[in-house]
Amino acid sequence: MPDLRKDPITGRWVIIATDRARRPTDFTRERVVPQGGRHCPFCPGHEKNTPPEIMAYRGSGGPNEPGWSLRVVPNKFPALRVEGDLDKQGQGLYDRMNGVGAHEVIIESPDHMTSLAEMPEKQVADLFFAFRDRIVDLQKDPRLRYVMAFKNHGAAAGASLEHPHSQLIALPVVPNRVQEELDGSLRYFQFRERCIFCDIMQQELQTQERIVFETDHFLVLAPYAARFPFELWIVPRKHNSRYATTEAPVIHNLGWVMRTVLRKLDKALEQPPYNAIIHTAPLQVGPLEHYHWHVEIIPKLTKLAGFEWGTGFYINPTPPEEAARFLRDIGLP
Amino acid sequence: MPDLRKDPITGRWVIIATDRARRPTDFTRERVVPQGGRHCPFCPGHEKNTPPEIMAYRGSGGPNEPGWSLRVVPNKFPALRVEGDLDKQGQGLYDRMNGVGAHEVIIESPDHMTSLAEMPEKQVADLFFAFRDRIVDLQKDPRLRYVMAFKNHGAAAGASLEHPHSQLIALPVVPNRVQEELDGSLRYFQFRERCIFCDIMQQELQTQERIVFETDHFLVLAPYAARFPFELWIVPRKHNSRYATTEAPVIHNLGWVMRTVLRKLDKALEQPPYNAIIHTAPLQVGPLEHYHWHVEIIPKLTKLAGFEWGTGFYINPTPPEEAARFLRDIGLP
Repeated sequence: MPDLRKDPITGRWVIIATDRARRPTDFTRERVVPQGGRHCPFCPGHEKNTPPEIMAYRGSGGPNEPGWSLRVVPNKFPALRVEGDLDKQGQGLYDRMNGVGAHEVIIESPDHMTSLAEMPEKQVADLFFAFRDRIVDLQKDPRLRYVMAFKNHGAAAGASLEHPHSQLIALPVVPNRVQEELDGSLRYFQFRERCIFCDIMQQELQTQERIVFETDHFLVLAPYAARFPFELWIVPRKHNSRYATTEAPVIHNLGWVMRTVLRKLDKALEQPPYNAIIHTAPLQVGPLEHYHWHVEIIPKLTKLAGFEWGTGFYINPTPPEEAARFLRDIGLP
Repeated sequence: MPDLRKDPITGRWVIIATDRARRPTDFTRERVVPQGGRHCPFCPGHEKNTPPEIMAYRGSGGPNEPGWSLRVVPNKFPALRVEGDLDKQGQGLYDRMNGVGAHEVIIESPDHMTSLAEMPEKQVADLFFAFRDRIVDLQKDPRLRYVMAFKNHGAAAGASLEHPHSQLIALPVVPNRVQEELDGSLRYFQFRERCIFCDIMQQELQTQERIVFETDHFLVLAPYAARFPFELWIVPRKHNSRYATTEAPVIHNLGWVMRTVLRKLDKALEQPPYNAIIHTAPLQVGPLEHYHWHVEIIPKLTKLAGFEWGTGFYINPTPPEEAARFLRDIGLP
């Protein structure tokens, strides 16, 4: 009998197929293997082919010169613009404002061919330090309400360039799904006076069923009502609603955790495309007792069928318990 | 400057790119052209290769024999099962129930090679009569709370078989996005004492900017905060929350309207894959003053990027006004 499970945070229902559970080898996917290319605008020596950099971590050289290990540049085709007023307006019963915001690209490494999973631990941690540095800077702008920090890996996951990179989009509004999480976790807090994410971690540690691995700072788990096969969450043990206030030792550890997650996925699913996104509280609000930042990682293995975008209702052919067990058993050198 | 627009029903924000608006020819997509195949389980003569039919429209023959023009069968690999109790349970802070429900396939025509857009008007109307007949039957089951009626056209849109077909999934819960629409339209109703869909139609008829065409019974429009390029809504002019109570003349007209929409999309976008879904009120509730059933159609032209599934926040590269104008100007023989 299939299982209908409710996500305790959003109230979203998911069908978990139990009868014909699909294992990693049952999925067809596009293996992400970089081809290389002489004309990559993100490769060292081509710094003039991107807009001027916003910041960089570098051992040598000046701005927009080689010598960097990580580089942040404005997106050349930004979805939003930094300049201008919001100019909020009604148009009859509709509401609109100017698309004010920021759209930045984090070039994760000078090396075109090495994926995030294959980079040294410190390089992966640097990506998370760069996310933090940029959010700390962007939140000074009172027009901005939310920063989405995410990575698309592979063309099937939406990456248009293969050189390893992540993105930031800073918005003057809070996206719907984030608001839904905030509302759901607030409802729980009003009822129990505890953070739902903290409670989830406590319960998961008791059953161990959906935990992939843990460190002093993080739990990696397959969520109870996972929407997608091998969906994983990286949750910090210590309560904190705002990613931007995460302390350096925790971010160092996050580098190791993320790299370990990606290496396990690479081994289990043969270098799958994936999306990763940091879920964090909105800007311009203080620390929240009811919300808890975390990272969600979703290998791109299945096509979304029609009713899923239309209804927010998902069918997941791989129970999270099986995904967690499979990934737990993956040994890494 | 990009436009940030708020969907008046759900509160969802969408970036509408205005500077480099993308026209139909700017999109790459998989043209949906049936290849044919001797072993199709949906073709006449192969009735034994599907589970026994639930209903059929037929000119001759008995159940599970050729002679039908439309046939409804259980999905051979159903996401949900008809038998059994819901057996609702808590598991610590989690909630689950048995995956009780129905998953049915509507085979739209005996003809493998003819797409819905190419079928006679009456055949398209028959699909909508079949949706109505099945919902009327399924809503007798008190365990069921919602029926999702949808079509995936083409592999890129999630169709696993090419013979023209649609699907129904009957659920014991109301999906999140549907609840979000219900909640949003209720909020509007509480404020204005009018249906928001009726108000939207009135405003759209005044500006005409986003209307593709209209009939006595329907408005076809590109929604103000369209998430996807060439997203279209078919909205009945007369207020009605429940698709299953739609009267025969209106459904006949819906056949013509749907066929016209699909033929315009086929011409504009070269036979694109698409998803279509009927949005209707939950089962087991009376008529709702604040909700209004409608059909949403989304050509599958862009890949969803990482942040879109994670945040419910969309970037649409084609303003709905341009999509509507383009489709208005498409002449059909």
